[in-house]
Amino acid sequence: MPQDNKTSLVFDHVTLGQRVLFGFGRARSNLADEVARLKARRIMVIVSERERSLAEEVAAEVDVAVWHTDVAMHVPVETAEAARAVAREVEADLLVCIGGGSTTGLAKAVALTGGQRVVAVPTTYAGSEATNVWGLTEGKRKTTGVDDSVLPVTVIYDARLTLSLPVDMSVASGLNGLAHCVDSLWAPRADPINAAMAVEGIRVLGEGLPLLVDEPGSVTGRDRVLYGAYLSAVAFASAGSGLHHKICHVLGGTFDLPHAQTHATVLPYVLEFNAPYAPAAEARIAQALGGCDASAGLAELRERISAPQRLADYGFRRSDIPTAVDIIQQHVPEGNPRPVSEMALTRLLHAALDGSDPRDTFTEE
Amino acid sequence: MPQDNKTSLVFDHVTLGQRVLFGFGRARSNLADEVARLKARRIMVIVSERERSLAEEVAAEVDVAVWHTDVAMHVPVETAEAARAVAREVEADLLVCIGGGSTTGLAKAVALTGGQRVVAVPTTYAGSEATNVWGLTEGKRKTTGVDDSVLPVTVIYDARLTLSLPVDMSVASGLNGLAHCVDSLWAPRADPINAAMAVEGIRVLGEGLPLLVDEPGSVTGRDRVLYGAYLSAVAFASAGSGLHHKICHVLGGTFDLPHAQTHATVLPYVLEFNAPYAPAAEARIAQALGGCDASAGLAELRERISAPQRLADYGFRRSDIPTAVDIIQQHVPEGNPRPVSEMALTRLLHAALDGSDPRDTFTEE
Repeated sequence: MPQDNKTSLVFDHVTLGQRVLFGFGRARSNLADEVARLKARRIMVIVSERERSLAEEVAAEVDVAVWHTDVAMHVPVETAEAARAVAREVEADLLVCIGGGSTTGLAKAVALTGGQRVVAVPTTYAGSEATNVWGLTEGKRKTTGVDDSVLPVTVIYDARLTLSLPVDMSVASGLNGLAHCVDSLWAPRADPINAAMAVEGIRVLGEGLPLLVDEPGSVTGRDRVLYGAYLSAVAFASAGSGLHHKICHVLGGTFDLPHAQTHATVLPYVLEFNAPYAPAAEARIAQALGGCDASAGLAELRERISAPQRLADYGFRRSDIPTAVDIIQQHVPEGNPRPVSEMALTRLLHAALDGSDPRDTFTEE
Repeated sequence: MPQDNKTSLVFDHVTLGQRVLFGFGRARSNLADEVARLKARRIMVIVSERERSLAEEVAAEVDVAVWHTDVAMHVPVETAEAARAVAREVEADLLVCIGGGSTTGLAKAVALTGGQRVVAVPTTYAGSEATNVWGLTEGKRKTTGVDDSVLPVTVIYDARLTLSLPVDMSVASGLNGLAHCVDSLWAPRADPINAAMAVEGIRVLGEGLPLLVDEPGSVTGRDRVLYGAYLSAVAFASAGSGLHHKICHVLGGTFDLPHAQTHATVLPYVLEFNAPYAPAAEARIAQALGGCDASAGLAELRERISAPQRLADYGFRRSDIPTAVDIIQQHVPEGNPRPVSEMALTRLLHAALDGSDPRDTFTEE
């Protein structure tokens, strides 16, 4: 947890080494320069069929050995094996993934066994490009792991590639990033360094999301939200999953609710619940959002950008709550600043289901 | 320069991968754990004779192959060669340096040619442990270079090891760190990521220095200043040398003024000079120091901790100013937010010589 003025600092922080090239409209030249700098000769581009034409523009100045477009959600083992076989066959020495989380995830799966370097060019706010976490799905079962060899050596961010993300999806996804930042302040491996990144992420997303909503084609708004999504991934990968993430993980996994919208909806309730028990985090969130009160600052931002409001809108039902509470209770992170009772979780989920005012949720406890 | 709301973000940031273990009184156990984790077998400890007994406590649980105490300021080439020979002879696979900048510098010089990993245990606020910069001195000539192989894989910070730093030296050295943070906001490679680290450094040093002065044995103050010194090194290594650093470099190199005190004294004048032309940086410095005005915040902090005030106290003379101005003019960083005239530099150095009020320095320009 971020330290207040009275406590000693004790932490174990691992900073992941990575190059970040950022610039609107610069992906093409940045990729060419980076391929040259890395002295790569056999380049395998991984991209979904849907984004292939975009990727062809980005890789226009690169000599590509093979285009691989067999990409699937959650990286099925068979998809990974097929991509690995192609990488071996062409003797790829660099994997360039252009796309969202599944595309980056496939490049990581190849690098995990093949040892190739990865350059990632994200087109969404997924954040996978900034982490050393890989994931594979066998049947319905997802395995994840941590390995520094899957961390892309370079990430090339170009907000021009995100212009086709619809505004409502951008808002939900940007708030998902904001949730990662907020949650990382009380996550199990929270430390002052990842807290600094998280606070910067909150500041940048708080600035960028209204700009993006007001003018969806604006460079400024798109730049800031993409940069904020990067920071949220760095903070989250370092700090681990806090209460918010655990709740959303259950809602997504067990009830199949959509990822970004669920995070966007649940955040204000977890913030309201934890804030009184985490005054240092609360103060920093408030300051980063430009106000004196974290919950009020978030409420203002959410209203300004028409944030998702009710889990009911995404298929969650009142009758699901007892099961959800039961599963969540088994996954509450040990260091959460406030003890988490069955009653509190029940109230939280009822409020998030209906979109009622967070301030009225925990008053009677 | 940190971006304001209206501009697009363009940057090329390299994050250096490193582990940081932080904890008061924990250096001994953290070092033992880290040696085990790294599976190191042949350990060479580098430490000055003066700090040997301290180092023996820190390394008490480690099987040391050789103690090397031939350390000298600025890493003379002969000193580096001698240490390299010892490292080869004992087949060292890990260098553990315990000490200040010269000790860390020697370990880096060995790693540069021998390729051994380095674990650094700093006992000062030098910051070298967090950078990939090495330096060697041949005769009077200092050569520096950048090589990722000299970056310590792990830094073990233990503020207990800094308790013997006298308060006035701690203040000057902490303000040197603060100067690195402030200066990095307009340095040549300033970007949003190193700015976030710099702002966190300003915040932490602004909190820690008064605590350290009030109670020099306090864990809280010593912890924060040491953590702030780390952040300042990270920010500075990433952003490069701004105007402040260039001025102090000339004052130190040509007139032999003491490093930390010179930085501590010059900072308020450079801040006063640049601030009106760098409003975004000014606002962030102000906020990090807990006020509405960066210069006023710095003045308040400096008064609170009895900061060094006059270059005259450190051997600088009025008659040195024209020569200093002449040399500094050849090293002004290109991207400095405010054009730097001979007149402005002359006023700046006169004011810093006498310790006059920064607010009265540039009023007539």
